[in-house]
Amino acid sequence: MPDVERGVEQREYNGLKYWRYTDDIGTTLRGTVILFDPSGQRPVRTIPGFPHIKRVYRLRPGVQRFFHTNPFFVEEKLDGYNVRLLVHQGQLLALTRGGFVCPFTSEWAEIWWQRYKLGRFFVTYPDYVLFGEVLGDNPYNSQRDPTIPPGLYFFIFEIMRSDGEFLRVHDRYELVESYELPTVPLLGQFTSDRIDELFEILRDLNNKEREGVVFKANTSKKTMKFVTPRTDLRDIRDNLILEFDLEPGFITNRLLRISLFVRELSLKEDEFASRLGRAFLDGYSALETFESSNEKYNIYVKLPKTWNSLRTLLSGYVPIKTDRVEPVVLDGLEMLRVEFRRVFRKSTRRYREILRGYGHID
Amino acid sequence: MPDVERGVEQREYNGLKYWRYTDDIGTTLRGTVILFDPSGQRPVRTIPGFPHIKRVYRLRPGVQRFFHTNPFFVEEKLDGYNVRLLVHQGQLLALTRGGFVCPFTSEWAEIWWQRYKLGRFFVTYPDYVLFGEVLGDNPYNSQRDPTIPPGLYFFIFEIMRSDGEFLRVHDRYELVESYELPTVPLLGQFTSDRIDELFEILRDLNNKEREGVVFKANTSKKTMKFVTPRTDLRDIRDNLILEFDLEPGFITNRLLRISLFVRELSLKEDEFASRLGRAFLDGYSALETFESSNEKYNIYVKLPKTWNSLRTLLSGYVPIKTDRVEPVVLDGLEMLRVEFRRVFRKSTRRYREILRGYGHID
Repeated sequence: MPDVERGVEQREYNGLKYWRYTDDIGTTLRGTVILFDPSGQRPVRTIPGFPHIKRVYRLRPGVQRFFHTNPFFVEEKLDGYNVRLLVHQGQLLALTRGGFVCPFTSEWAEIWWQRYKLGRFFVTYPDYVLFGEVLGDNPYNSQRDPTIPPGLYFFIFEIMRSDGEFLRVHDRYELVESYELPTVPLLGQFTSDRIDELFEILRDLNNKEREGVVFKANTSKKTMKFVTPRTDLRDIRDNLILEFDLEPGFITNRLLRISLFVRELSLKEDEFASRLGRAFLDGYSALETFESSNEKYNIYVKLPKTWNSLRTLLSGYVPIKTDRVEPVVLDGLEMLRVEFRRVFRKSTRRYREILRGYGHID
Repeated sequence: MPDVERGVEQREYNGLKYWRYTDDIGTTLRGTVILFDPSGQRPVRTIPGFPHIKRVYRLRPGVQRFFHTNPFFVEEKLDGYNVRLLVHQGQLLALTRGGFVCPFTSEWAEIWWQRYKLGRFFVTYPDYVLFGEVLGDNPYNSQRDPTIPPGLYFFIFEIMRSDGEFLRVHDRYELVESYELPTVPLLGQFTSDRIDELFEILRDLNNKEREGVVFKANTSKKTMKFVTPRTDLRDIRDNLILEFDLEPGFITNRLLRISLFVRELSLKEDEFASRLGRAFLDGYSALETFESSNEKYNIYVKLPKTWNSLRTLLSGYVPIKTDRVEPVVLDGLEMLRVEFRRVFRKSTRRYREILRGYGHID
């Protein structure tokens, strides 16, 4: 039986029993999944959770501290959600960061199976796991990447072998190329003495309003991330209205990062001062006609039962309001377009009180 | 014996035993002080803590909710620290908000005794307590009011009778006038239908970089406060460098208030967007040559033992570094000028890590 008190939870997807780690336990990461044989009696496979990538606040000392004089790969960090894709007993499964089999992403994975010819890959490497970022119309990011067309897209950033090790970065890019698998963009290989080129890459990503970069040693064992201020500003603007439901430091960490980035990369201070203030005035402008603190989502599913399962999963955490379900044709596929909202209760209550002139003790 | 577990602490000042409430207990407020007779056996007097004043985030609905059609007084809110002044067994005592007898403020109270002829008042009203805001060179506000000359100044905002009730606002102003006692400025008496005049007062205080207003029913039992965005901006700028030692919400509450104020009072959005961003860039500019997160103070004391007692009191909470002690003459009085710093450990450690390029998981 799962050790519920220590943070292991038993769940079921499509007749398949699995356990998920709801917390880090010892060296086992939150989101680790244990898969069972068809009898549901015998655990047969462990899919490790994805390790947290450390963030640095200043690029120059960060790169030196992490990599010294060693080379590292720079990949673009895409702004989506983290998914592990694998085949278990003939079923294609998509696991979220938290270790849930996501009914929505797993359904889309079937589309990717065709689109990316995943069968060719998994027939050769049946026990490998594809770690990737998922972008497009999805139930987890309300800020969707605007460069992505309607639908859902997968970009590999790690491949795990059957022994639980990640492929070396170099080998991974060779493999995705030979199988024509989708991948996050590789921006190059660097050493810390080429910091000015890294600054230039980040200025460029910032101008294009891209999220940021991940730096990796070839083994993927030393990894760090760095995000652009335009991303941080957008996060601030779009999340102010949920502020009382965010973890402490969500806003202030981003403000600190923006200020440090503007200085380290010699961006125009006046321009960023004004952008920063604007993010606040614009973010709070929703209070002018406030009804509730919510995030709107628009997704595409094939089967009504996929939306039902997803809604049940999401409702365990935040109340979900379905606004619209309608049949559409997407890329030649008959699908359902679902509009829904997540409603954030604490922020809704607090902002209503504030707007009605309640007094607060602070 | 004090009920330590429930948050009552026994302390001593100048041979005088007292208890302070370290927390709210039932209806007794944190900061309430119980004074003893000379034997130290019998509690003889209770000085209630100062009640928290509720803050409203929007003026128009706030005023209506608090006062309906009833009149209320508007006082300027001065930006200092809250002190209760009283005479107990021939000793003049200054109690801080937390219920400490402050050796520094109590020493200055002797100067005020002369300056404001407090004897005339206390001989007639020996059991009254003067509640006031203290401004000037002090160990509690590093952001001192720039309009105040060197030294320390007291401004009454409530007077408590021996029965524990506050004087009515109208009676209080009569009393302070007849005894020529120092007082917070009264800005007028209003009703909620004159909201435009209140907006004008607040725009004016904001332009003058004053802290804000307190609105009070004549009994002082309905009270609310409202602070200007210039004050909030200054608080943000000056406290960013201590951020990891601040309570959660310190920065974000101020950002929300500023945004709401700018809209409600129709201030220039572009100007405030840029001021707001500037507060962050300027506040974090201290990281360019960072050594530690600290606040600098400059105070004047008469006796070395006063500084010793104060330092002991302060050191119980934040490490204190004394930078300089020198004799000076202030307003004809021989005094010691003391420069010291409070060092904030958590912020110091976090910022050092950040600047050295450590990785953080968030």
